[in-house]
Amino acid sequence: MVKDIKVAIIGVGGVGKAFVSQLYNYIEKNASTVSISVVYIGRSSSALISTDYSPLRLTPFVAEEVDKTGTDPLSIPDLIKFLKASGSETILVDNTSSIELANTYPDILSAGIHIATPNKKGFSSEEKLWNDIFAASGNNGGKGGYVFHEATVGAGLPVLSTIRDLVDTGDEITKVEGVFSGTMSFLFNEFAPVVGSESPKAFSDVVKVAKDAGYTEPDPRDDLNGLDVARKLTILARLSGLSIASPTSFPVESLIPKPLESVATPKEFMDGLPTYDSDMGLISNEARGEGKVIRFVGSIDVPSKAVKVGLEKFEYSHPIAGLKGSDNIIAFYTKRYGDRALIIQGAGAGAEVTAMGVLSDVIKIIARIK
Amino acid sequence: MVKDIKVAIIGVGGVGKAFVSQLYNYIEKNASTVSISVVYIGRSSSALISTDYSPLRLTPFVAEEVDKTGTDPLSIPDLIKFLKASGSETILVDNTSSIELANTYPDILSAGIHIATPNKKGFSSEEKLWNDIFAASGNNGGKGGYVFHEATVGAGLPVLSTIRDLVDTGDEITKVEGVFSGTMSFLFNEFAPVVGSESPKAFSDVVKVAKDAGYTEPDPRDDLNGLDVARKLTILARLSGLSIASPTSFPVESLIPKPLESVATPKEFMDGLPTYDSDMGLISNEARGEGKVIRFVGSIDVPSKAVKVGLEKFEYSHPIAGLKGSDNIIAFYTKRYGDRALIIQGAGAGAEVTAMGVLSDVIKIIARIK
Repeated sequence: MVKDIKVAIIGVGGVGKAFVSQLYNYIEKNASTVSISVVYIGRSSSALISTDYSPLRLTPFVAEEVDKTGTDPLSIPDLIKFLKASGSETILVDNTSSIELANTYPDILSAGIHIATPNKKGFSSEEKLWNDIFAASGNNGGKGGYVFHEATVGAGLPVLSTIRDLVDTGDEITKVEGVFSGTMSFLFNEFAPVVGSESPKAFSDVVKVAKDAGYTEPDPRDDLNGLDVARKLTILARLSGLSIASPTSFPVESLIPKPLESVATPKEFMDGLPTYDSDMGLISNEARGEGKVIRFVGSIDVPSKAVKVGLEKFEYSHPIAGLKGSDNIIAFYTKRYGDRALIIQGAGAGAEVTAMGVLSDVIKIIARIK
Repeated sequence: MVKDIKVAIIGVGGVGKAFVSQLYNYIEKNASTVSISVVYIGRSSSALISTDYSPLRLTPFVAEEVDKTGTDPLSIPDLIKFLKASGSETILVDNTSSIELANTYPDILSAGIHIATPNKKGFSSEEKLWNDIFAASGNNGGKGGYVFHEATVGAGLPVLSTIRDLVDTGDEITKVEGVFSGTMSFLFNEFAPVVGSESPKAFSDVVKVAKDAGYTEPDPRDDLNGLDVARKLTILARLSGLSIASPTSFPVESLIPKPLESVATPKEFMDGLPTYDSDMGLISNEARGEGKVIRFVGSIDVPSKAVKVGLEKFEYSHPIAGLKGSDNIIAFYTKRYGDRALIIQGAGAGAEVTAMGVLSDVIKIIARIK
């Protein structure tokens, strides 16, 4: 029997567009075993709604069409009612970064609707929300929908599935360490490379190159404040069994010079940054003196419950020092794996690989429902 | 509702014993959501059979008890009948390396029994067996049992799940490259280290150290012939979409000197090996002259359909050159990930991590059945 699944998608930015395109290919290729209909595509101001649950035309998908031909988006309670009334198994794909939407996950899951999402907010905010989400879900044998969020850490890299496999099979995670931000990876791989370090660059120049290439948020302070990494560490620490109140409940080093925290515009920030190049140069040179380079890392020491985010020094031969481009690297130390870490490395950002993480979650949900 | 699952286990060697211990812990921890009963534990000469399907006592599990208190093992047709008559969903865990057992997978799966196994034989032998197994299985939407074999490559490392996620979400794998044998990894990390190479070791000495430490098969030729790596490459190439007739249908370099292939005992082989140290020394020195080290790797170039196993040279800064201990490393190059590989690295052998790979498959099967 061909399974019948209805999908609602919220958010059609870069990741959302890549996801729709990948999902369409998946639907075509697997039509003989599963029937997937996209019945809702929403963005903040408008939505395409298939009121009779016939599949919305997906290709060629032009996100702007949602605005042109769409109607008002449904409220979440109305979206839940709409999906439940389909009589099918339903999956909501949240491709936004909205905390408001994440706050409604417990209601969505309680209604039996499954969720796949790269949105970190639901899993890295107050601990109550995390608890409410998983209590409402069917992940641990309950009656609610399944919730999968692989792409919240490392995009398409198999980070969360690996940590879940380790924990589920009874291994004990002792330490997690890595570079969790493609932006931070690029900045320090360029600023403090292991080789070719003869003529050191100014940190502000590297930030400018990254900003101009689109590797940073429009305001680079949204990367440099470390909060994105702190959110990912919150998720990993919780999956490792630690209780984490919020992403600001452990030490997070901001790379924004104090006086530039409050300047109004990204331009003012960028203009002011060169003033502080000597500070970062000093830190890097001190590391060089010890035969090391600096990297912006996150680490979780499970036995001591110590979670932290910030600059650390690494010897040239360390895998974290040898990182290239904007790659992420995540090292899991566990009881079974002993001294030698289980390491996952590769692109941890980008629309295509993030969408891939979301689609693989959708596929896993489909495999679990009949 | 608590799911009711019956499990049959064949093979109680190192991996089998570790698996039973991990499974028992899992059963205890998850008793509120799933009821798992081990109803059959078999080895070649004897078996414990719970004829009324009540759970066999698992702890403390002493493998020798199977021989002491067991009866004759069931034939596979009788085991299928026994499991089907339970009326429950059933999983067969094959912890052997038997081709005879693997040959019966299509029958087992056709009967609706699921399989989890670290046994490479079913997936790396003649292509017909591979095709028969997956045609009989429920993996691709059919009616048969699910078959999962994560631990056939890289033990507990998430290698096969990753390649499946890449393929399922529509990525195109262009190249797979890596060190797939813990034994080969140890031999060359010791014989041709990136650092500390001042006083080169004799290859035969390194093999002796590995053999004495139990890192090789009782007859080291079973590692040095490259067939174990060839079997893993066969599995990865098939998952990457290539048609591979058998593990001997592509070039595999054997490190066994020709005249020692036919000597009768491991001792004669070890005694003869030092004669050929200069050959291996020459190959290593030539690489050194180019600023490289030699490693025993497998690679799959998907567009040209070229699969090969053997010695290759790598620059000191290459992740494969920097490997330590007996770690495996697997690099996936894909269309989405571009020039930068998705890399998975860590212990790829050992009873505990292999058993973990098998148990995580069992957990995934349970999640898919109701």
